[in-house]
Amino acid sequence: MNPITASRRHFEDLSVGEITTLGSTTVTKEMIVTFAREFDPFPFHLDEEAAKKSLLGGLASSGWQTAALTLRMLGDRFLNTIASMGGLGFSELKWKKPVMVGDTISGTATISALRRSRSHPERGIVTIDIAIGNQRGEPVMTMRLANLIELRDPSAPMPLEAAE
Amino acid sequence: MNPITASRRHFEDLSVGEITTLGSTTVTKEMIVTFAREFDPFPFHLDEEAAKKSLLGGLASSGWQTAALTLRMLGDRFLNTIASMGGLGFSELKWKKPVMVGDTISGTATISALRRSRSHPERGIVTIDIAIGNQRGEPVMTMRLANLIELRDPSAPMPLEAAE
Repeated sequence: MNPITASRRHFEDLSVGEITTLGSTTVTKEMIVTFAREFDPFPFHLDEEAAKKSLLGGLASSGWQTAALTLRMLGDRFLNTIASMGGLGFSELKWKKPVMVGDTISGTATISALRRSRSHPERGIVTIDIAIGNQRGEPVMTMRLANLIELRDPSAPMPLEAAE
Repeated sequence: MNPITASRRHFEDLSVGEITTLGSTTVTKEMIVTFAREFDPFPFHLDEEAAKKSLLGGLASSGWQTAALTLRMLGDRFLNTIASMGGLGFSELKWKKPVMVGDTISGTATISALRRSRSHPERGIVTIDIAIGNQRGEPVMTMRLANLIELRDPSAPMPLEAAE
């Protein structure tokens, strides 16, 4: 057994429908400009005057920054508590409302599916539906993440619905 | 017309099938550790010994860092050359192979769809299929991004296949 993850929850310990409440993050102007300068240098993420004239109506974080901050909240409350082997990808990610300077984002992570790998019986795949909102309760982003997780007992019988 | 984007290509100037070659980025250990510490603090992104024992087989970038670096390459060669109004989301993002220390990533962005908004006739939606590979030509990530773009002439007749 992997010594780093031995004490963490494994595939067998998770249930579909389980909901984890994520922490919260307040997005400052400095955070927005620093991230945008490195990864997403558009005027509406860098300059308040240009931002006011854009569709966003004011200085707003890069949607990718919102995603990265969500990853961090998901890691702290969920991924770092399970025997995660890494992410596989997203099936969808939608930005619903901009995250403006001073907004506080938080949200939930819900396990929407659990499948065992047929080709690698020591691995499972957990599907996590993430919903992020702002301090007014407005939805700002949703995404569905597929993540690999270790089984505690790979010799257990394989269910019929195992994934490839 | 928006003075920032007036000289850029608009919805009418794009064609389905158009391919843009992105630049390249070499991923250093410092980049991996700095990003992971802020957004994705897992042992396999922070520590070489832990990384060797993980599924990745060595120190590798966070998949979200690969996505953020791709965004920057896409911005430099494509999004900052068109009258972009911001991203709508992804329909899928898949990590196919880890990006290891010293790997150089590059790729292509292909316009796979162009639709005009019915509710906002001054806007179009461009769908971009992105394929990123490493210096050995192995695929490392694919994603499909939907992005808003201004029309040069919003009074032009609306095609039958316009999107909501």
